[in-house]
Amino acid sequence: MNLLEERILKDGRILDGNIIKVDSFLNHQLDIEFLNKLGQEIYEHFKDKNINKILTIEASGIALATVVSQAFSYIPVVFAKKQKTSNIGDDLYQSVVKSYTSNKEYNVTVSKRYLSSDDNLLIIDDFLAEGNALKGLIDVANQAGCQIEGLSVAVEKGFQDGGKIIRDMGYDLLSLAIIKTIENGKFEFDN
Amino acid sequence: MNLLEERILKDGRILDGNIIKVDSFLNHQLDIEFLNKLGQEIYEHFKDKNINKILTIEASGIALATVVSQAFSYIPVVFAKKQKTSNIGDDLYQSVVKSYTSNKEYNVTVSKRYLSSDDNLLIIDDFLAEGNALKGLIDVANQAGCQIEGLSVAVEKGFQDGGKIIRDMGYDLLSLAIIKTIENGKFEFDN
Repeated sequence: MNLLEERILKDGRILDGNIIKVDSFLNHQLDIEFLNKLGQEIYEHFKDKNINKILTIEASGIALATVVSQAFSYIPVVFAKKQKTSNIGDDLYQSVVKSYTSNKEYNVTVSKRYLSSDDNLLIIDDFLAEGNALKGLIDVANQAGCQIEGLSVAVEKGFQDGGKIIRDMGYDLLSLAIIKTIENGKFEFDN
Repeated sequence: MNLLEERILKDGRILDGNIIKVDSFLNHQLDIEFLNKLGQEIYEHFKDKNINKILTIEASGIALATVVSQAFSYIPVVFAKKQKTSNIGDDLYQSVVKSYTSNKEYNVTVSKRYLSSDDNLLIIDDFLAEGNALKGLIDVANQAGCQIEGLSVAVEKGFQDGGKIIRDMGYDLLSLAIIKTIENGKFEFDN
């Protein structure tokens, strides 16, 4: 069992409605020392790719992206913003995303100043469920002409479709922990 | 002139309507090496206080809070979430905040699991204008019985009231750069 799987067993919670909470260390309260170890794992997987920028999305991807940047000797991090679908300037790349958790649509936006065809990206987020946020980031990156070298998330819900969708698109997706099932109120992992 | 003031002069922009943009390095694209230097400055100011936790707010406070945590040898970071004012569970501390930028109200929320009277807090954010976000964090911290050892922001707009409001409340507020004015399209700092 790996580091993140052990931590999920120790501190993760399963709520009614099959909701997974890892908010004591990953995405509300943050264990920064632990995140740095996860960042190192992500670096080890992608270090031979020619990555020069990290793309993530607010808010829960930012801390993980920060520590991954440090593992890559401080490459820039760009975090996409989430905005209601409305009047958005033409100085932004944008993609419409449906949120799995809220079932609402929002715009993922990145300023055109901060993504270009010079960028070889690692796309980072904390959680992967249906893959909608990652697809939005991929779309924005493609509009900007970036090269997407890979994607990485801390936790993939293996019983939802996001992982398959992203891998079937041909991308190298590293999920540090893949939760196979949470039936019976217990975490089981895909190794 | 200090490190952040120099960077603002070099990379900051002033847009019509007196809007300050530092989004190439602080709060959209992130220069993580530079943020670590800012984090070290914040640590130097507060290192003799008995700080054991950082409280910040999504999204732009998170990267700065992450690097400050590292300077403090990995104390936990808790980031408050912003939610529309609506049905919010009783398992959350919450405070209503009016956004200076959008002129809308939102709820600042933190799970009751992650703040308590054991916490000696450093409150962190990237920007200080009218002080509404910081006041929301102070309110949530007080509800939880935390001891607030101090607050720190990267950029304070010295020509707005937030700095005075927070200091008049008696708190030790460290602003790494205080912008005195942006009249005539130029940055001038309070040193």
